[in-house]
Amino acid sequence: MDRNSVGLVTPKRFTFGTPQTPMTLESGHHLGPVEIVYETYGQPNEDRSNAILICHALSGDHHAAGYHNPHDRYTGWWDNQIGPGKGFDTDQYWVICANIIGGCKGSSGPGSINPATGQAYGLDFPLVTIGDMVEAQKHLVDHLEIPTLFCIAGGSMGGFQVLEWSLRYPQQVRSAICIASASRLSTQAIAFNTVGRSAITRDPEWREGRYSDKGPEKGLATARMVGHITYLSEMLLDAKFGRKLQSADRLSYHFDSEFAIESYLNHKGSAFTQRFDANSYLYITKAMDYFDIQRSYGPLREAFARITARFLFISYSSDWLFPTAQSREMVRAMLANGRPVSFIEIGSHYGHDAFLVEGDKLRPVIAGFLQGVGRQVRP
Amino acid sequence: MDRNSVGLVTPKRFTFGTPQTPMTLESGHHLGPVEIVYETYGQPNEDRSNAILICHALSGDHHAAGYHNPHDRYTGWWDNQIGPGKGFDTDQYWVICANIIGGCKGSSGPGSINPATGQAYGLDFPLVTIGDMVEAQKHLVDHLEIPTLFCIAGGSMGGFQVLEWSLRYPQQVRSAICIASASRLSTQAIAFNTVGRSAITRDPEWREGRYSDKGPEKGLATARMVGHITYLSEMLLDAKFGRKLQSADRLSYHFDSEFAIESYLNHKGSAFTQRFDANSYLYITKAMDYFDIQRSYGPLREAFARITARFLFISYSSDWLFPTAQSREMVRAMLANGRPVSFIEIGSHYGHDAFLVEGDKLRPVIAGFLQGVGRQVRP
Repeated sequence: MDRNSVGLVTPKRFTFGTPQTPMTLESGHHLGPVEIVYETYGQPNEDRSNAILICHALSGDHHAAGYHNPHDRYTGWWDNQIGPGKGFDTDQYWVICANIIGGCKGSSGPGSINPATGQAYGLDFPLVTIGDMVEAQKHLVDHLEIPTLFCIAGGSMGGFQVLEWSLRYPQQVRSAICIASASRLSTQAIAFNTVGRSAITRDPEWREGRYSDKGPEKGLATARMVGHITYLSEMLLDAKFGRKLQSADRLSYHFDSEFAIESYLNHKGSAFTQRFDANSYLYITKAMDYFDIQRSYGPLREAFARITARFLFISYSSDWLFPTAQSREMVRAMLANGRPVSFIEIGSHYGHDAFLVEGDKLRPVIAGFLQGVGRQVRP
Repeated sequence: MDRNSVGLVTPKRFTFGTPQTPMTLESGHHLGPVEIVYETYGQPNEDRSNAILICHALSGDHHAAGYHNPHDRYTGWWDNQIGPGKGFDTDQYWVICANIIGGCKGSSGPGSINPATGQAYGLDFPLVTIGDMVEAQKHLVDHLEIPTLFCIAGGSMGGFQVLEWSLRYPQQVRSAICIASASRLSTQAIAFNTVGRSAITRDPEWREGRYSDKGPEKGLATARMVGHITYLSEMLLDAKFGRKLQSADRLSYHFDSEFAIESYLNHKGSAFTQRFDANSYLYITKAMDYFDIQRSYGPLREAFARITARFLFISYSSDWLFPTAQSREMVRAMLANGRPVSFIEIGSHYGHDAFLVEGDKLRPVIAGFLQGVGRQVRP
């Protein structure tokens, strides 16, 4: 076994609220009880000042490091950053990752049982926002008796949560790492999410969200294929697949997957349906579309005045879904407020996915930043 | 009525081949009879040396200019370039545009009747290539007794046909205009086509291509939505839609089209199903994926040695589906062969669609190039 692994982990559960005392969502709707599934790695120190909250992206979950079973083929999604001696060093920090509400991995979402009916919510689950996800995490952080998060970190939609935490609970966030993210989705990114949602809701198996068993697997697969293209850079696609044929030297003149890229995308699409719920895909992409710091907090420069956390922004050179310019815009707003901010654009061919796969490039940046935060006297 | 319009036009039909004397396709399969629907604008001169063949793109057709009915809401797709005094000046040139085979607007395609069964071909229609489309056009050009095309022009997949003509029948092409195109599709472009085809073939209404009436409208709509995003630049999406809501100032927290971009894409997707056939979408995107000058003719520099046409390449600054670099690569291969070549990258925010919508920018470039060709003594 990997000496740098956090090893075997067991997800934990936390529930708050009831139908009588529900959580009020940004939409005005209510949700209760709210279940949160989460994992922790490392140990809290005496005053619980070493807690780091990790926020996951669209298709991630609370299983960020280690494994659930000695025979697991895969580790948690950010195992290359979380562990002894890694970027988020579990010998020093108490690292926590919770499944977002709206998701499908154990926290409350459209697949959860609606206490009012005894059936799965389906589309009766209220729409949630990034703010609502953060609010649920706040309940968990309070439950864990963490006075202030040493750091909060995440990539992509995880970065949205990092930003929202820093704006909503500035006093409870000591430092923040926002990776491959933005203050709001671009129109193009909303457009791609629109296609994904349309593919799902146009699948007759979707049945207005009241599917059982398999559900709209074909629509969800199509949605994932679109997503996948946006997560990878054109360079990487060229280098990895080019115009290679999957299993022949000659063109076969039929409609099966013939180019390697076709085969890859179709496989990725189908595989995704085995591990993700179509309704959750609708809810989470909608939450991403809604996220907009300017709508919620005003122009970036004014909005960021409330931030007290020391910030690190990271972008990737070939990320076209969350391009570097979007990080720079936030860095400028931090600087305009005289806030402590670091920024690095990491050179990579991997596109948006770089924050997940280019572990070696990310590790020293995170470790160094956290070291600096630790040395800093609290303001 | 527009004084610069070619006015009322009537499509013409040309048929060649029979089940007994079919056309042999690149795949080795046979097709016959082959029907071609086409339009002409302007008049041939005495020796028919003023013919210009226009090649259309994926969702285009033979109706390139003018109108079919005085009450038509729309003109042909390149009406801003074809007409008296326009880029392709119909006072000087005899302009011809034919629907590609594999299409759905009258030329032989998967919706045509299979003489062997008396039913629509469906997937029994053989796969066609850009080379096959050109071969069919060659029959038409010979039928029209055109010894040499004064020019052949097209954008996007139309540019593929321009290149293929120039390589396959170099002596019959005097000049060529290849717009927003490439010597082969990028991996990313194949990936987007793959998503489109998957959306169609995963629609249960597709029925292995044997649908009647409506067919896989939902899958086709999704395919078109994906395509649409790739045709527009991110800049244009931001400027035109941004994060505007369709019909309210406040978020409505439901899954209907809420952002203007959602509404636009869903509308574009649905509208497309009224005018295009899903099987044709499969055949034509597949032909695009297959197009690869290097596979057919060897490395570009060697391949282009056979070209004798005077060439004009045009790209658009914000086109990310067929980026300028792909045009430059071809220009370099022409130059390496000492071939006469002109190149311009036109600044535009419209992305790939610029060749269709930015008529004013394109017109003088085309007119000037054709004037130069006319002045040139034939080699």
